[in-house]
Amino acid sequence: MQSSCSHFSSDPRPIGVFDSGIGGLTVLRSLMAAMPGERFIYLGDTARVPYGTKSAETVCAYSLGLAQVLRQYDVKMIVIACNTASVHAAEAIADFIAPVPVISMVPPAAAAAIKATKNKHILVMGTQSTIRSGSYARAIDALDPSVKVTGIATQLLVALAEEGWIDGPIARAAVERYIGPVFENADKPDTIILGCTHFPLLRDVIVDVAGQDVTLIDCGEAAQKLINGRTKGQPDIRFLVTDSVERFTPLVERFLGISATNIPAEHIDLTAILNTDLKRAS
Amino acid sequence: MQSSCSHFSSDPRPIGVFDSGIGGLTVLRSLMAAMPGERFIYLGDTARVPYGTKSAETVCAYSLGLAQVLRQYDVKMIVIACNTASVHAAEAIADFIAPVPVISMVPPAAAAAIKATKNKHILVMGTQSTIRSGSYARAIDALDPSVKVTGIATQLLVALAEEGWIDGPIARAAVERYIGPVFENADKPDTIILGCTHFPLLRDVIVDVAGQDVTLIDCGEAAQKLINGRTKGQPDIRFLVTDSVERFTPLVERFLGISATNIPAEHIDLTAILNTDLKRAS
Repeated sequence: MQSSCSHFSSDPRPIGVFDSGIGGLTVLRSLMAAMPGERFIYLGDTARVPYGTKSAETVCAYSLGLAQVLRQYDVKMIVIACNTASVHAAEAIADFIAPVPVISMVPPAAAAAIKATKNKHILVMGTQSTIRSGSYARAIDALDPSVKVTGIATQLLVALAEEGWIDGPIARAAVERYIGPVFENADKPDTIILGCTHFPLLRDVIVDVAGQDVTLIDCGEAAQKLINGRTKGQPDIRFLVTDSVERFTPLVERFLGISATNIPAEHIDLTAILNTDLKRAS
Repeated sequence: MQSSCSHFSSDPRPIGVFDSGIGGLTVLRSLMAAMPGERFIYLGDTARVPYGTKSAETVCAYSLGLAQVLRQYDVKMIVIACNTASVHAAEAIADFIAPVPVISMVPPAAAAAIKATKNKHILVMGTQSTIRSGSYARAIDALDPSVKVTGIATQLLVALAEEGWIDGPIARAAVERYIGPVFENADKPDTIILGCTHFPLLRDVIVDVAGQDVTLIDCGEAAQKLINGRTKGQPDIRFLVTDSVERFTPLVERFLGISATNIPAEHIDLTAILNTDLKRAS
């Protein structure tokens, strides 16, 4: 599923990046920073966001639908820029879209965390669905069974990031309530996987609670290192969303870290696209 | 759209109640308390929740789909137990399901608030989508143009209610941040419409910030007064959800206020049901 792509940079087709909504823009941000010369299509399922509170079956079905849409845009690779979708749908998507390579969030972040930890204790922060799946614990255990993994579902941080309350006393109190107790122990983690693409926005508050000596693993940055794309050129991005574009555009800047008002998002009718695809297939 | 139903109690068919997810259980709670002898079918669109951050078009399309499902269960009435759906889809559903009566959240809550306010200043708390629509302001203005309406989108309270953080310092700080400034003015509201079905869970914190002399309007209670149903008998409830039942059942008690572990929720495949219905219609 995780492929190295040595001849990848000569392929002019776009890289497809999908997420349940807007959080994946933090991943796109890492990809764009490392490979500005690539073309990107970002697909956000804003009509059905969030995935993190939904069941594995539903998340897998939704994610496969998004992969199906991206296939229609002739992408050369799919990056699943959503931890919950990575956990529940990466294998199904890899099967579906083969031989197009699929990069999911979990394996690169798990590997980066193992590389970073010195005391062999990693904290995974994620959505309810990601933590409940145990996927990070399994991925880390497969690479190094001596590493202890603590998982904490920090669901409210998603809403805080979307509301823009990413610093100040409320964000601090929420992070403290979730992860504070773990850092009061002598056996506290020295590495945190930000296992949801919203959480890099709360990086400062998380460091404030966990301590300056903790290493934070950003999934987008970890995944980006697997891809050898064009490192020079002009950014070329296209935004597709399943809900109306009006709600998407104001949030782009906060999550992407750059203004994107000159790139209009496009609404796509998911049902119509998937039905057309089914008809073609039959 | 708002019908009084004088011969309603002799009709043995169920009352259909739908919501974007679980918040509407607070409305079902009011309905059951007043009319325990009625049969209820509660349909929660847990696979696509929340509606409050989505566009009017998407909310309307989703809500019409739910009304279509309830029609298949031969309901004698539909209660739209979701403010966002009420705002964007009540008229479309009333047209679609006629002559079956439809009760939405906005008109009864607006009327109850006007009846309650003495200083003619009402605060509406709701989702982004509900507040942005201006529906409450219009409904109040149509009944009494002399009433001042302040609307505040208090989106994070939805996530707080779902996380179960309904009291304590974080809930207090969030409510304070949203509505505190309004209650520092001399011209402060004396009545608050809890314009999202999640908000009754945060009633104590809201009173704590707004003051004991403020009247809170619970939409479920206001809507329930429009319906003349069977006031004696045994409760008969059926829960249908579009996501997996495992995620729904643990939240029922918090929102419904009674244990419902003996009432198993049923998963319904929305796509399959709607497609079957379309085939029948064609």
